[in-house]
This record gives sequence, C-alpha cells and structure tokens, in this order.
Amino acid sequence: MEFQEVVRRRRMVRAFRPDPVPGDVVDLLLDNATHAPSAGFTQGWAFLVLTKPADRARFWDAAWPPDERDGSRREEVMSAPLIVVCYSSKRRYLERYAEPDKGWTDRDESRWPAPFWDIDAGFAALLMLLTAVDRGLGGLFFGLQHHRRVASAFGVPDDHRAIGALAIGYPAPDEPSPSLRRGRRPVAEVAHFDRW
Amino acid sequence: MEFQEVVRRRRMVRAFRPDPVPGDVVDLLLDNATHAPSAGFTQGWAFLVLTKPADRARFWDAAWPPDERDGSRREEVMSAPLIVVCYSSKRRYLERYAEPDKGWTDRDESRWPAPFWDIDAGFAALLMLLTAVDRGLGGLFFGLQHHRRVASAFGVPDDHRAIGALAIGYPAPDEPSPSLRRGRRPVAEVAHFDRW
Repeated sequence: MEFQEVVRRRRMVRAFRPDPVPGDVVDLLLDNATHAPSAGFTQGWAFLVLTKPADRARFWDAAWPPDERDGSRREEVMSAPLIVVCYSSKRRYLERYAEPDKGWTDRDESRWPAPFWDIDAGFAALLMLLTAVDRGLGGLFFGLQHHRRVASAFGVPDDHRAIGALAIGYPAPDEPSPSLRRGRRPVAEVAHFDRW
Repeated sequence: MEFQEVVRRRRMVRAFRPDPVPGDVVDLLLDNATHAPSAGFTQGWAFLVLTKPADRARFWDAAWPPDERDGSRREEVMSAPLIVVCYSSKRRYLERYAEPDKGWTDRDESRWPAPFWDIDAGFAALLMLLTAVDRGLGGLFFGLQHHRRVASAFGVPDDHRAIGALAIGYPAPDEPSPSLRRGRRPVAEVAHFDRW
C-alpha cells in the first residue's frame, strides 16, 4: 500500500475478527519494529509476543482484571488474536551512552532532555501499527495500568518497563472512540512558524 | 512510495543539499504529524518550524553553541533547510484525563504507566521522518541538550518540553553514524514469544 494511504487509513481498532494473524505478518511486524530509529542505535526495546489463547487470557487477567471490567463494548478488544507488549530498557541507554564515543560515564539521567528509551520503543510500536494497516489488519495501542501484574505473569525482568501494548488483528465493526469527538487539532494550532 | 520501501529506506541523514524543502512537503509533514495517534486523542504536541536562514542560525546558536562544535563532519547537519522542533505538553494530558470520561481529576502523574505525552510527540516525529523519505527527502532526529536556550530564543512556553528536533532536507553524501557498527539487534533477541 502507498505510504500516504497507510497514514490516512490508520486508526485505533477496538474489535477483531477471530482469524489469527498470519505468521509472515507477525514476522514482518517484529522485523519492522527493529527498523525503528533509536538514540545511539541503542535499540533498547523488547517485545512480549502473545498469540496462544491461554497466554492472551493470562495477559488480560493481569492487564484488565475481570472485576474491573464493565460488560461494555470496550471488552471487544480482548478478541485480538495477537498481543505485543512493548518494553523499554532505560538501563541499556545509560550503558550505551557510558561507552567511549558518548562518554556519559556518570550514567546521570538528568543528561537526557527526554526519555529516549520510551520514545524509541514508541517508534517501534508505531511502525507495528502502520505495518498492520499496510497488510490489511489493524490495531490498538493502549497503556497498562497493571504493568507490574503483567510483568509478574510473564517473567519480565525489573529493568524493562511496559510503555504500552498492541492488540492486533483483522478489524471487525467497532465503536469509534468517544475521544474522537474532540476533533483533530489543525496544523495552524499546533505548528509555530519562525517563532512561537 | 510503497510503505514497506519507506520503512527500509529510512535512515538518519546527516548532510543536506542546499535546496529548500518545497512548501507542499512542509505542509504534508505537519499534516501527517497531526495524524499520529495520541492517548485520549489529547494531541498534546506542538512544533516549532524553522525555514528561514536567520531563524535556523538562531536555532543552532542556541542548540549547539559555536564553542561546543569541533569542526567535524557532524556540523554538516546545520546545512538542513528545515528544522522542526517537536514539543510535548504533559499539562494537556493531565487536563484531558481529568475530564469526566477519564476521571483522573487528581491529575496524579503516578497514574501514568509511561510518559504518553513524550511517546505521542515521538509518534508525530517519526511520521514526519517517514513522510520525508516518502517524498524523496531525509532527516535526522536528535535530542536537544540546550533545550532551555532554544525555548528562550523562540519564546516557547514553560509547559512545553522539547522531545527532540528534526533536521530535514534533500540528502547529500554523509558519513554514516559510527553507532551503526553496533549492528541491528535481531528479532530473536528482542522478541519474547509466549513468555520472557
């Protein structure tokens, strides 16, 4: 698909057909994720990839415990045949930038004007969302309130933080997010030419 | 260009031809940036867009003061005809999620498992980099050590943080980043199937 069409078609998908994500698409999603840019080519990302029904059920039990669900259509997201939890490792960035070519041997976090570990993992997540669209699928990126429960359920080491998770599959009819009623902020509002 | 080709061609460009970025490409970059996803459709991003030589010179004087330059080929990045500084506003996210449909009226930052304000602004930055590639241009995303000097030079309000800046233009022959010698981390190393 043309790049511009992918950008325009992408939207968060919240309900999925039961068909599994083909293996070659899973491979391409992950391969494209590793082509995201990263500061100092640190690539301090990691992905927990869940395709089996039992693993996905364990994920949802941890990420969205049954006693917090409300029976609304929001639960349709649990129909996604593929979950990719996206992790960032700050440790890897501090270590990378302590190497001789960067020289931040004090590993002082205040040197970092922004959390590039999270931003880079976000780059990888967005490339997976766009790749899904390119291949006729769709996905949702969502934050994990209960990221510690998820880490505990799947043996994720302490030095990795979940920046969010992707639910991916073939789109089924869903309810658009009520947030969309806010409207898109026009370029004239968010772009400042020459000065603020 | 096909989406997959854009993903594979994208690399950080560090030197540029003097030709300006056409106005329709500047428009498309910014329009695509506003099509990035964002938590709660907050769209808490903003962009400082610099095309005029005097503005770009003022940017570089603040972001990379002359007494910190070393005469190396790294200075070629200053040839970029377009600079887009990418900002995130945490305040907008805390306000958005204090609205009734989200209900986080305490505006407590600890509710946020990751800094979605920075991640969403990163999404917008990556879409601009990919759009540049799609249109035959290229770009570099880089962090701003002296973001306060930049803010002061251009009147950026305190509640906006620079997650980084884009230098964009038509690529000229450059020196690939020495960081690339590290090699790409293979999918088998970063992806964990079923469990960690």
